[in-house]
Amino acid sequence: MRESGPLDQLIRAFSGLPGLGPRSARRIALHLVSHKSQALLPFIKIMQDTADTVQVCAQCGNLDSLSPCRICQSETRNRAVICVVADVAGLWAIERTGVFKGLYHTLGGLLSAMDGVTPEHLRIDSLLDRLKAGTVEEIILALSATVDGQATAHYITDRMQGIQAIRISRLAHGVPVGGQLDYLDEGTIATALKSRASL
Amino acid sequence: MRESGPLDQLIRAFSGLPGLGPRSARRIALHLVSHKSQALLPFIKIMQDTADTVQVCAQCGNLDSLSPCRICQSETRNRAVICVVADVAGLWAIERTGVFKGLYHTLGGLLSAMDGVTPEHLRIDSLLDRLKAGTVEEIILALSATVDGQATAHYITDRMQGIQAIRISRLAHGVPVGGQLDYLDEGTIATALKSRASL
Repeated sequence: MRESGPLDQLIRAFSGLPGLGPRSARRIALHLVSHKSQALLPFIKIMQDTADTVQVCAQCGNLDSLSPCRICQSETRNRAVICVVADVAGLWAIERTGVFKGLYHTLGGLLSAMDGVTPEHLRIDSLLDRLKAGTVEEIILALSATVDGQATAHYITDRMQGIQAIRISRLAHGVPVGGQLDYLDEGTIATALKSRASL
Repeated sequence: MRESGPLDQLIRAFSGLPGLGPRSARRIALHLVSHKSQALLPFIKIMQDTADTVQVCAQCGNLDSLSPCRICQSETRNRAVICVVADVAGLWAIERTGVFKGLYHTLGGLLSAMDGVTPEHLRIDSLLDRLKAGTVEEIILALSATVDGQATAHYITDRMQGIQAIRISRLAHGVPVGGQLDYLDEGTIATALKSRASL
């Protein structure tokens, strides 16, 4: 298809999406174009609807067609617990477990000396504002167990010094459920050993 | 995201595309929605352009924004050779090699007793019409080396009996370039042995 028409542009657009290479992009574009009325046109409509309605929740930073989002608006969620996540992907991952019934706060990233991400780039001030409001009893720092994640967790803990007593917790480290020991790195196994649970 | 809003629909739409599962669909949808003006809106525009312009070439069945397509219209292609492919994916695959300078004919599939695909479902009559026009000297059957591909090739060869002498060829079978012998099936190696080339 050595052409620069719309089809070629579509393939290039698809191959720019995360996780897609030129091969899969071609396959998808071909599928959509070959099924114009059943696939391509409905797809455009859904994307347009998304573009028209989805927005960032002014309170927690979640993406939803409402702001405040459905979670922040929900009557059944526990407003005393806030789970702090780096991004919306993390929020969705926790939400899929169905276990957490509190509210969220997305930071919009992690502090990173390498990438030049400083506290001003993250939604940390708005997190502290929410904590100062006084209804929150616990925050769960659900950040990656990486250098950047740890640094961000430390920074938030430091900044919370002035505020009234709020329990701060983090996700447990250990062996993933279903994980095989010989595929795990030493760090994870060492942590799992130290934090071993009685049977 | 246990919601049924547009974002959820978008994720479902992406996970219905060939080669994408729910995980990659979520990742892509999140990427698009998080970069609305740089990613989502231009993407919608490209898809809309594609939907508005791309059509099936009336002569060869290729997908292009012109009909007859750029290949059929081209002054530099050899009109005496037609390469017969099952679908547009096959056409693009051959076109990417840059080696073939003739015209194409896409059948829209392969004959298949299993899937109930009969000659009436394929663009075989229009292929014969093109051959009857008298300018074609050779057709290359670039069909898969499968039962369905072979059956389709046989059927086309049979139907061509009445038409004036046209050379019929098929793609060579053999060891893929860069292919390692011990990863190849016996059928391919046997064929490559029988069709061995002198050095």
